[in-house]
Amino acid sequence: MAVIIDGKKVANEVTENIKQKTSELKQKPKLAVIIVGENPASQIYVRNKQKKAEYVGFNSVVISLPVDISEENLLEQIYILNEDKNINAILIQLPLPENINKQRILEAIDPIKDVDGFTSYNFGKLALGYKPYVYPCTPKGILYLLDEYNIPIDGKKVLVIGRSNIVGKPISFMLQNRNATVTMANSHTKNLKEISLSSEIIISAVGKPNFITSEYISDGSVIIDVGINRTTDGLIGDVDYNSVFDKTSYITPVPGGVGPMTIAMLMQNTFELFQLQQSLII
Amino acid sequence: MAVIIDGKKVANEVTENIKQKTSELKQKPKLAVIIVGENPASQIYVRNKQKKAEYVGFNSVVISLPVDISEENLLEQIYILNEDKNINAILIQLPLPENINKQRILEAIDPIKDVDGFTSYNFGKLALGYKPYVYPCTPKGILYLLDEYNIPIDGKKVLVIGRSNIVGKPISFMLQNRNATVTMANSHTKNLKEISLSSEIIISAVGKPNFITSEYISDGSVIIDVGINRTTDGLIGDVDYNSVFDKTSYITPVPGGVGPMTIAMLMQNTFELFQLQQSLII
Repeated sequence: MAVIIDGKKVANEVTENIKQKTSELKQKPKLAVIIVGENPASQIYVRNKQKKAEYVGFNSVVISLPVDISEENLLEQIYILNEDKNINAILIQLPLPENINKQRILEAIDPIKDVDGFTSYNFGKLALGYKPYVYPCTPKGILYLLDEYNIPIDGKKVLVIGRSNIVGKPISFMLQNRNATVTMANSHTKNLKEISLSSEIIISAVGKPNFITSEYISDGSVIIDVGINRTTDGLIGDVDYNSVFDKTSYITPVPGGVGPMTIAMLMQNTFELFQLQQSLII
Repeated sequence: MAVIIDGKKVANEVTENIKQKTSELKQKPKLAVIIVGENPASQIYVRNKQKKAEYVGFNSVVISLPVDISEENLLEQIYILNEDKNINAILIQLPLPENINKQRILEAIDPIKDVDGFTSYNFGKLALGYKPYVYPCTPKGILYLLDEYNIPIDGKKVLVIGRSNIVGKPISFMLQNRNATVTMANSHTKNLKEISLSSEIIISAVGKPNFITSEYISDGSVIIDVGINRTTDGLIGDVDYNSVFDKTSYITPVPGGVGPMTIAMLMQNTFELFQLQQSLII
């Protein structure tokens, strides 16, 4: 019988804690979000981030830029935010338009304001096993959930499906730093079933609805479902929840699992960058 | 019947090619090596690097610093090399004395002169799947050997034993970027034998003499032995060569496998950084 990992509840606890700590501050952390174009999903994400920032008492600003903005003008916006002492955290909402060099844009963020941890500097620190300014939000949220539910990581065999820079890669580094044995699978992987059947923790971040069925799961495994797939049946994860439920020991639902943790960790990271920057003021 | 991967031969080809290209240059690439203290093994490594650099026609300088040098003075040396337009590549011979913060020292190298690729900037680019200025020498040498022997990587199940920043981590990124399914094992891994038996390529970088025996190997597997263990019987790898030989399809010997490639790739990286820096001169 599975324990449902209640990401919504844990995220609320994190958020309330930040709200409390922020209420005690004279100066408030400030998050800047840049959105380019009018992708409806991106607009919803950005609105949710801004609402959450306001809820916890942060200042926030959303900078909406036209879809045909030039790379140079977008860089210029980032430089302005880098220089602005009132801005503590900068987030570029992805995806960016195809003609924009995503890497160049993300790289332009001052690492100490890089709230997603996607600059080479912060990502490199993480990969090297050192402490970056902040850890990327989604993997940080996943580890928080595993720890909150006292799920052991050390020595465990973990399968990470999907090698994105946002989830797959950074969670694999963070789990390795916690002494897990990590297998990274991708779309070229053969015999995925064989690998997943021998894994104790499975983290799926591929974006294929109901992709992981009970045939992929051994009894007692821990399932972390990072997939958020919009279907006519609503939001659906990568994991066929009902099919696997009885076999798992712990499982995250979609929605209400990893998703709420990502936004809570964004607030946590904004708070941490604020504190770090305050500590550097002489 | 295994094919022996002749790292010495391939490394010689690489080196001769660099020597030829260097002979055509007016200005020669220059490598600076910093060595702290008098560790005899480190002194041998540094001497070999310098000899190889001279052989291919590079200029080189070895800066020998006392074991009790302060971190600040060591940093000062690096800054001088960073500023020196005649120096194209900087290598800090490891290990450093225990009282020195290794991360802080390696991080001080200008990424464009970071011939080992160990700065957060270059390591982060690599981890993110972008092109760093150069790839770390040992994993670059391993990939070069796999390609030279036309050993397929895409979709292959690879086990990397050891999670060092020098070998295990970067080779895992580079193999993932080539669409391999990579499992990273470490000293906390349980059931290593089970994992290695299901792997098609095994890369061992743990430093335990004759650790991998025939029980760990399935028929037809490819074995890359990165271990260099000094024993009373001479240099011995991580792999029990005679025990596994008949089962493997390809195997690197120790010595004469990965070792010579590391130093050849150091020359290659020095050359590449030189070219890159020349291209940036207006």
